[in-house]
Amino acid sequence: MKVAIVMGSKSDYPVVARAEKVLSAFGVEYETRIISAHRTPLAAARFASAAEADGFGVLIAAAGKAAHLAGVMAAHTPIPVIGLPVKSSTLDGLDSLLSTVQMPKGVPVAAVAIDGAENAGLLAVQILSLCSEELRAKMKKYKADMENEILEIDEEFRRENRR
Amino acid sequence: MKVAIVMGSKSDYPVVARAEKVLSAFGVEYETRIISAHRTPLAAARFASAAEADGFGVLIAAAGKAAHLAGVMAAHTPIPVIGLPVKSSTLDGLDSLLSTVQMPKGVPVAAVAIDGAENAGLLAVQILSLCSEELRAKMKKYKADMENEILEIDEEFRRENRR
Amino acid sequence: MKVAIVMGSKSDYPVVARAEKVLSAFGVEYETRIISAHRTPLAAARFASAAEADGFGVLIAAAGKAAHLAGVMAAHTPIPVIGLPVKSSTLDGLDSLLSTVQMPKGVPVAAVAIDGAENAGLLAVQILSLCSEELRAKMKKYKADMENEILEIDEEFRRENRR
Amino acid sequence: MKVAIVMGSKSDYPVVARAEKVLSAFGVEYETRIISAHRTPLAAARFASAAEADGFGVLIAAAGKAAHLAGVMAAHTPIPVIGLPVKSSTLDGLDSLLSTVQMPKGVPVAAVAIDGAENAGLLAVQILSLCSEELRAKMKKYKADMENEILEIDEEFRRENRR
Amino acid sequence: MKVAIVMGSKSDYPVVARAEKVLSAFGVEYETRIISAHRTPLAAARFASAAEADGFGVLIAAAGKAAHLAGVMAAHTPIPVIGLPVKSSTLDGLDSLLSTVQMPKGVPVAAVAIDGAENAGLLAVQILSLCSEELRAKMKKYKADMENEILEIDEEFRRENRR
Amino acid sequence: MKVAIVMGSKSDYPVVARAEKVLSAFGVEYETRIISAHRTPLAAARFASAAEADGFGVLIAAAGKAAHLAGVMAAHTPIPVIGLPVKSSTLDGLDSLLSTVQMPKGVPVAAVAIDGAENAGLLAVQILSLCSEELRAKMKKYKADMENEILEIDEEFRRENRR
Amino acid sequence: MKVAIVMGSKSDYPVVARAEKVLSAFGVEYETRIISAHRTPLAAARFASAAEADGFGVLIAAAGKAAHLAGVMAAHTPIPVIGLPVKSSTLDGLDSLLSTVQMPKGVPVAAVAIDGAENAGLLAVQILSLCSEELRAKMKKYKADMENEILEIDEEFRRENRR
Amino acid sequence: MKVAIVMGSKSDYPVVARAEKVLSAFGVEYETRIISAHRTPLAAARFASAAEADGFGVLIAAAGKAAHLAGVMAAHTPIPVIGLPVKSSTLDGLDSLLSTVQMPKGVPVAAVAIDGAENAGLLAVQILSLCSEELRAKMKKYKADMENEILEIDEEFRRENRR
Repeated sequence: MKVAIVMGSKSDYPVVARAEKVLSAFGVEYETRIISAHRTPLAAARFASAAEADGFGVLIAAAGKAAHLAGVMAAHTPIPVIGLPVKSSTLDGLDSLLSTVQMPKGVPVAAVAIDGAENAGLLAVQILSLCSEELRAKMKKYKADMENEILEIDEEFRRENRR
Repeated sequence: MKVAIVMGSKSDYPVVARAEKVLSAFGVEYETRIISAHRTPLAAARFASAAEADGFGVLIAAAGKAAHLAGVMAAHTPIPVIGLPVKSSTLDGLDSLLSTVQMPKGVPVAAVAIDGAENAGLLAVQILSLCSEELRAKMKKYKADMENEILEIDEEFRRENRR
Repeated sequence: MKVAIVMGSKSDYPVVARAEKVLSAFGVEYETRIISAHRTPLAAARFASAAEADGFGVLIAAAGKAAHLAGVMAAHTPIPVIGLPVKSSTLDGLDSLLSTVQMPKGVPVAAVAIDGAENAGLLAVQILSLCSEELRAKMKKYKADMENEILEIDEEFRRENRR
Repeated sequence: MKVAIVMGSKSDYPVVARAEKVLSAFGVEYETRIISAHRTPLAAARFASAAEADGFGVLIAAAGKAAHLAGVMAAHTPIPVIGLPVKSSTLDGLDSLLSTVQMPKGVPVAAVAIDGAENAGLLAVQILSLCSEELRAKMKKYKADMENEILEIDEEFRRENRR
Repeated sequence: MKVAIVMGSKSDYPVVARAEKVLSAFGVEYETRIISAHRTPLAAARFASAAEADGFGVLIAAAGKAAHLAGVMAAHTPIPVIGLPVKSSTLDGLDSLLSTVQMPKGVPVAAVAIDGAENAGLLAVQILSLCSEELRAKMKKYKADMENEILEIDEEFRRENRR
Repeated sequence: MKVAIVMGSKSDYPVVARAEKVLSAFGVEYETRIISAHRTPLAAARFASAAEADGFGVLIAAAGKAAHLAGVMAAHTPIPVIGLPVKSSTLDGLDSLLSTVQMPKGVPVAAVAIDGAENAGLLAVQILSLCSEELRAKMKKYKADMENEILEIDEEFRRENRR
Repeated sequence: MKVAIVMGSKSDYPVVARAEKVLSAFGVEYETRIISAHRTPLAAARFASAAEADGFGVLIAAAGKAAHLAGVMAAHTPIPVIGLPVKSSTLDGLDSLLSTVQMPKGVPVAAVAIDGAENAGLLAVQILSLCSEELRAKMKKYKADMENEILEIDEEFRRENRR
Repeated sequence: MKVAIVMGSKSDYPVVARAEKVLSAFGVEYETRIISAHRTPLAAARFASAAEADGFGVLIAAAGKAAHLAGVMAAHTPIPVIGLPVKSSTLDGLDSLLSTVQMPKGVPVAAVAIDGAENAGLLAVQILSLCSEELRAKMKKYKADMENEILEIDEEFRRENRR
């Protein structure tokens, strides 16, 4: 199963690219699209409505300000939608976060941190792991590697500071 | 020209009813609908897309939390959309306000105050007044009456407190 | 009908100019003024009071901090007033937004996003479109063009990333 | 010299009355008015413009939401204006506070705490004390009395809890 | 696959029970536990570490204030963790939300709205649907039913108001 | 009567200097001190307690973060204290503002905008004007000059843009 | 060594009493005082300055709004000061928290949660435990008991829900 | 007794180093570690559980965003834990602060200001001073020196500005 990534504007790509990188590292196939909930509403509805049939298992939606993209996607598809709030030039991301996470009863969005693109990717992998022992194993290895990496950084830091 | 009022949930009606009352007072025809951007996305798109042809000149959209309704409406119609953020049980309306007002470039929403239903109605009247001398005259009278009402309240308050 | 643009300080012009550009693109006549609600209160009252008679159909008021300009304008005119909150050096625009949008019952202001000058311009056009089939047609074309532009950006983005 | 108290709406009176009580206790003459910056803009401008000539030394302006009243008063008078932000039904007074305190360069407002009516009254007394040795003496007595009152409450509290 | 629900305190149960109800309606097996990240850290680590082996496919963690529960769970398990921020007696849920959603790179939590227990349940179902055609079908039916319910409420509302 | 200016740290001087400039322009004598409520509490108490006797009519206190300086000054003196919240490196000045303005009943502080040093100076002048016809006249001239300046800027702006 | 508890107003006692209860349970001697940083500044300075000599090892200061009490205490004593922000009638405790925690370099305050009186008491005990093996042992027992209590509540909750 | 400093990421070190510097200046032994509550949860639990036995008297935990590190440490140790919220790239430190300070009943964290590393160090010294007359004496000297330093800066500032 593939992951769909949609972003509301091409300017969100520097953030979104970090999610792509995570998915690539896990060998998860993905497709990235620029679709705006407000400027291309028909494309948004069409894409979300077809997402399941098109073989997508999870959808990541990245947007800023009054960030409706994840909510609009979630309205049109039964697959889990991850909302990635993108910080814009005012309000330090609070508007993006609240617009993404405060969804009404009935249509959930799984929000990650503001600009938390890596975690959007990792959450997608965790979700896909439910039906893939291979992915689950990779996720466990990722967690173990991350743990070891920090342990080594700590080790090195202590060594340096001892001298 | 009529005003369309849409609300995301029937529980928003106590707030919305105050907008209806204003429109009635001005003799402006309106139609109120319960349409959810997230739970009835097709109805929302359909309603907004047809709004102009259906004879609506202005659209008022009332919603709470991650309040996407006004934005979704605005995506599908060229007529002006007034966003009425409704206070919900958490965050004191800040989420509703930011989700309504912080629209991205290209798709404006005209936001009024949180729970500011009367002003949503009045703004609709002001907009419709552009092509109706009768409505404009009524709006001027409304402003004058309001002014006089406050002046009288002040007068009475001073009389009472003098004694 | 013309659009009046007022800004509280000349330093708001870089933001406001983006609204002018939108109006120009639609062929809407506008007049831009520097009028401060606090520093030139008489000029503010005079301008707003005369706005309707002077042939203005909509008024855009841009201001920062305790942004009273839109409210003061709205107090003196029956024509619709669009409030454009401008981000200042502290609080990231939250003060400008709340001072603009949280208007009391009776005197609406149509607030757009913080620094959302393009949308202020577009909203003015949408409002003027009510009595102008030509403007309405242009607005529809604008929306269609914007949609196509995003669709093409998406198309190009996918082409680039495929290779 | 008298103190002028203006409030944007009669519903602010329960808060404002506490300022009156303070002024009465100090024997300071005051006049309370209901004047709205938005609904009675001419009365507001007229009142503020005449305030100095009418014998007012200080002006207290109480308002909620997009609380422009103090700013509008300050625009029209050279006498010091105290802004009293009143908590309204949404946003817990943050909108009233920011609209009152974040005044632009050139037109100061002296803001007190949200719903801090007693302090608005006391600040007015402190200001008037500048030219009145009698008032200054009363203010010193007030501070001493307040100090003693707390010391006694503390004394009593300790006595009670000892047993 | 079962869903694990953990809450930081028994006082969170009135909120959490709404997630249970959703899971029951979908026929999804769940187990609810009271485990505190701070007061029973060993039990928390033990439960999360064993969650996968114990047959849980998704974990919902509900907590308030400095809501660390979801993050602690996510640190110890490779399965997806849904964070449900619970509103507490101060700050209106903002602390719970930020503590839940702003997770650092490497350990995602899927946050839903403050007190958004139904959506936590629905998101769990959406995730489990990835490997269950039966659940996916139920989720589609749920969405369709919800849509129809709103359409009927709208229909009824219009009928009532017509008369 | 002189104005006392105290700042909590020398790093606040770039902001505070703008208040000095205003006072100089009005020919008001002032004395500027670096006194910290927390680091030199005795000096703070001593300075404030002696302020009245030392011939100060108004006191301006500038501080950032948990900005207690104005409150501490106000606790020790009957003269009016103007609080000038200074923006620090985190929270964009919100902490400074709330710590300055939200004073408890009995001890008022007159807060101006975050970093609003000019207005702190102007407010001091307005207060001192109560007993000085000369200062009052200067303040009126200041307001008139400011008004004319904006009117000219507006005039010039319009001339430029006409061409 | 004793713990000093000071509160800015008697109205804070319902919150503060929960700290007393914790200290009593640990057999820690304490003395509670009503001292206001703003209304009894001399008593505040005197109390804090003498605190060490008076045998106090830790000081808890509870206050609301522009909560300066903890900071003022910390300015006058070398012993650790715990700041307990008390929620007041506006801003939901945010003002109290920021005024307490955002202390400038040089004078720390140890802030606990808004209305977190039990934790203020527990933190005092933890600090005193540094020189008291008996207290340390009690603190360990407290933590173990708390853990067991939650485990039992969990056990019971599961038993109830099984049936 | 030593002080343990843990930080959630090596990128926090520029902030944390300022706490080390303070401890060094006081001659307090410390050990700094990089341990993540989320990425190395076992190391975190192990470190905190052993902290008391390992001779640590106080623990400083520095982290950003959903800053759980201090809370996790506090869950596992009876010694006092100082939480140092680190400002991250979004929300200006508010998330770090609330995640650190809003701890639930039973497990206190002593929070200092956002990025307030010096104060974290000083608070640790104040706490350790409880059982060390030498440290207490140094702390008093530190406070006196700081006071004198400010007094001298003030003196110098006045001298400079006199000329």
